[in-house]
Amino acid sequence: MQNFIFENPTKIIFGQGQIGRVGKEVARFGRTVLLVYGLGSIKKNGIYDQATASLREAGLNIVEFPGVKSNPVLSHTLKGIALAREKQAEVVLAVGGGSVIDTAKTIAAGVRADHDVWDFFTYKKSIQSALPVLTVLTLAASASEMNAAAVMTREEGLQKFSIRSPHIQPRVSILDPTALFTLPATYSAYSAVDAIAHMLEPYFNNTEPDSPFQDRLVEGLMRTIMESTEIILKEPANYSARANMIWATTWAFNGLTSTGMGLISLPVHMIEHSLSAIYDIAHGAGLSIVLPGWMRYTLDRNAGKLARLAREIFLISERDERLAAVAGIERLQAWFAAIGSPTSLTEAGIPEEDIDKIAENAAVLAQVWQLKDYSKEVITEILQQCR
Amino acid sequence: MQNFIFENPTKIIFGQGQIGRVGKEVARFGRTVLLVYGLGSIKKNGIYDQATASLREAGLNIVEFPGVKSNPVLSHTLKGIALAREKQAEVVLAVGGGSVIDTAKTIAAGVRADHDVWDFFTYKKSIQSALPVLTVLTLAASASEMNAAAVMTREEGLQKFSIRSPHIQPRVSILDPTALFTLPATYSAYSAVDAIAHMLEPYFNNTEPDSPFQDRLVEGLMRTIMESTEIILKEPANYSARANMIWATTWAFNGLTSTGMGLISLPVHMIEHSLSAIYDIAHGAGLSIVLPGWMRYTLDRNAGKLARLAREIFLISERDERLAAVAGIERLQAWFAAIGSPTSLTEAGIPEEDIDKIAENAAVLAQVWQLKDYSKEVITEILQQCR
Repeated sequence: MQNFIFENPTKIIFGQGQIGRVGKEVARFGRTVLLVYGLGSIKKNGIYDQATASLREAGLNIVEFPGVKSNPVLSHTLKGIALAREKQAEVVLAVGGGSVIDTAKTIAAGVRADHDVWDFFTYKKSIQSALPVLTVLTLAASASEMNAAAVMTREEGLQKFSIRSPHIQPRVSILDPTALFTLPATYSAYSAVDAIAHMLEPYFNNTEPDSPFQDRLVEGLMRTIMESTEIILKEPANYSARANMIWATTWAFNGLTSTGMGLISLPVHMIEHSLSAIYDIAHGAGLSIVLPGWMRYTLDRNAGKLARLAREIFLISERDERLAAVAGIERLQAWFAAIGSPTSLTEAGIPEEDIDKIAENAAVLAQVWQLKDYSKEVITEILQQCR
Repeated sequence: MQNFIFENPTKIIFGQGQIGRVGKEVARFGRTVLLVYGLGSIKKNGIYDQATASLREAGLNIVEFPGVKSNPVLSHTLKGIALAREKQAEVVLAVGGGSVIDTAKTIAAGVRADHDVWDFFTYKKSIQSALPVLTVLTLAASASEMNAAAVMTREEGLQKFSIRSPHIQPRVSILDPTALFTLPATYSAYSAVDAIAHMLEPYFNNTEPDSPFQDRLVEGLMRTIMESTEIILKEPANYSARANMIWATTWAFNGLTSTGMGLISLPVHMIEHSLSAIYDIAHGAGLSIVLPGWMRYTLDRNAGKLARLAREIFLISERDERLAAVAGIERLQAWFAAIGSPTSLTEAGIPEEDIDKIAENAAVLAQVWQLKDYSKEVITEILQQCR
C-alpha cells in the first residue's frame, strides 16, 4: 500500500421518503438556494415537487436554473454563475445525475472566482473556495454525489475536461432509490457501464501490486452492480435493486477503491471524453466502446490482472492466463451488449475515418492529465481496437 | 436496503513517515494538547519521540496523560478530565490503540460536561460537545480511529459500557504501518479476532435480508484480515501485511459494513464486555471465546448465513446448509486457535461455576442496550457453548 490521504465528509441520507429532508439540510448553509436541474424529467416524476415543497417549507428563496443536458457545457454553466451572482445565491442544490451535479459544482466554484472558470479545468488556477453544494440524486453512475470531481465540456475546441477540489464536494447528498424508478432502460445500462469503468481503471492502472482489500472491494461492487442492473432492466421499480445499485455506484468512485494504489490514470475516460465531446454520445455508451478495446490493447502487459477479473467476475476456469484474460474481455463486452450499450464505434455510427480526429482531440487531454504513455499514435492504436 | 444516514468525516493520513505531520494537524484545532497514551511501549519503539518532536515543532504546549491500560477504566479517565480542565487543554491527541483512543474520546466529552461523565454511558445524558480528538494509531483492531464510539469500564459494578457521538469522532487519524512492527504476536492475533467480530455481528444480526454489497465487503475484508494476520505472525515487520491489516480493520467497523442493514445488535460484544470487565482479559481473547459459542447457539435460525460464510471464507463445498454452517464454525474456531487466541472459557482459566456470575453481569448491559432477546437464561445458554 502506498501513502495516501483519505477524507470524504459528505453526509449521505439514504432511502425512500428522504427527499422531504432537503429543505432543512439546505437551510443549514444559506437562505437563497440556486436550484440546478436538467431538462425536466424531475417535473414528470414528482421529484421537483417534493424538493421544492421541502425548500419552501424551510423558508428558503429558490432561484431556479434548469436546462442542464448530459455532457454539460460551459456556455450554459456560465449563465448559472451569472444568475447565482445576480440573485446572491448562498448555496447550490443539484437535483439530478452527474451532469447536473457537475454543473452545480462548477457554478459553486465559479461564483467565488475572479477569473475565467475554465482556468480551473486547465489547471492554470486551483479552486480556493466555493459555495456549499448539496444534491438530490436521480441517476446512479458518476459518484459525483460523494466525490470532489466535476466534468465539463467547453464547446469551443470540443474540450471535455475535469476539476477536483474538496471545496466542491457535496456537503449532503440525498439518495432515494424511488427517484430512479422512471429512469429509461438505456440510462440504467449506461450507469452500470460508467460505474464499472470508474472502478476498472484504477484496478488496472495503478502502481501498487499488493492491494487485496481494494481489489476485492472492486470485485464485490462490480458483481453487485451487474446483478442489480440485470434486475433493474426487467423491473425498473425494484426498490432493492435500485438501492443496491445506487450505494454500489457511489462507492465505486468516491475514492476508497483507489486508496493506497499509488499513481492512478484514467485513459479510458480520457478517450471517451473525446467521443462525447465530439459526438455528444452518452458517457456510458462511449465507455462501453472504449473499455473493451483498451483492455485488448493492454493484454500483453496486463494479462495477470485481466485473468483475475475474468475468474472473479465471470467465473472463467481457463488456466492459461492470456486465454482467461481474453475470455474475460469477451464476456464483459458481451455483457455490455446484452444490457443495450454499444460496444463498437461502428455501432455508435462513428466512421473509421474519424479515428484520427478523435485521437487528435484525446491527445490534448492526455497532455493536460500528463498521461505520457498516451501519444496520438497509441490512442489511435487503441481506437482501432474499438472499431 | 433500509434507510440510513452515513457520515464519516475523519481525515486519514496513511503511510510510513506520516507521524511527523501530527503537529501541524493538531495545531489546526488548538494550542494546548492533552497527549494521551498507554503504558510506555511508544517510548520504546520511537513513536513517542516522533510525535512529541512534531508537536513541539508546531509550537504546541504538551500536557502528558499516560497510563491507559487495555480495558480502560473510568477512574483513570476521570483524572484525565481533571488534568485537561486544569491545564485548559483545547485538543486531545491519542497515541495508541483502541483503549487509548477511547480514553481520549471520553476525556474530550467529559471536559465539556457539567455532570458525571458516566451518565453518557448509561444513556442518561447525550453528548452535546467535545474537545477535538486526533489520533496516531499503534494497534489496528477497534476502528476507533475512524468511528464515533468509545468503550470504558467502570470498576464499581464491573460495568464495561459504551458511548457513540459524532462529537467524539476523530478529526484526523494518522495510520503508519511501521508503528505496529513491534506489536507482540498475541496482540496482533487479538486484533484480527476483534475486527472479525466487529464485522460478523452486523453480518448476522441485522433486519435486512438483501445486502449484497455489505456482505461482499465483509467477506473481502475478512479474507484480507486473515491472510494479513498469517503473514504478520511470521513477519511482524512486513510493511504490506501491516498496511493491509490496518486499512481493513478500519473499514471493518467505521459504519460502512452496516449501512442499510436496519437494526444491528452486538450480543457477542455484550457478553465479552462482561468477561473483560470481570477478568480483565484482552477484548480479542474474550471475543474468540464467545463468538464461536454464540454462532453455535444461533445455528437453528442462522444456518443459511452461517453456511454462506463457510463457503465464502473457508471454501467449504458441503452442500447441506446446516453441515456447512457447522463446518464453518469449526474452521473459524480452529483459525482463532491457530493464531494463538483462546477459544474456550476453560482455556482462559475461567471456571464453569462462574457462568452464572458472567451472565448476571451481561444481562445488565443487555438491558442498557435493549437486547430483549438476551435474558440471563439465554446468555447462560450461550456461555455453556463457550466452555
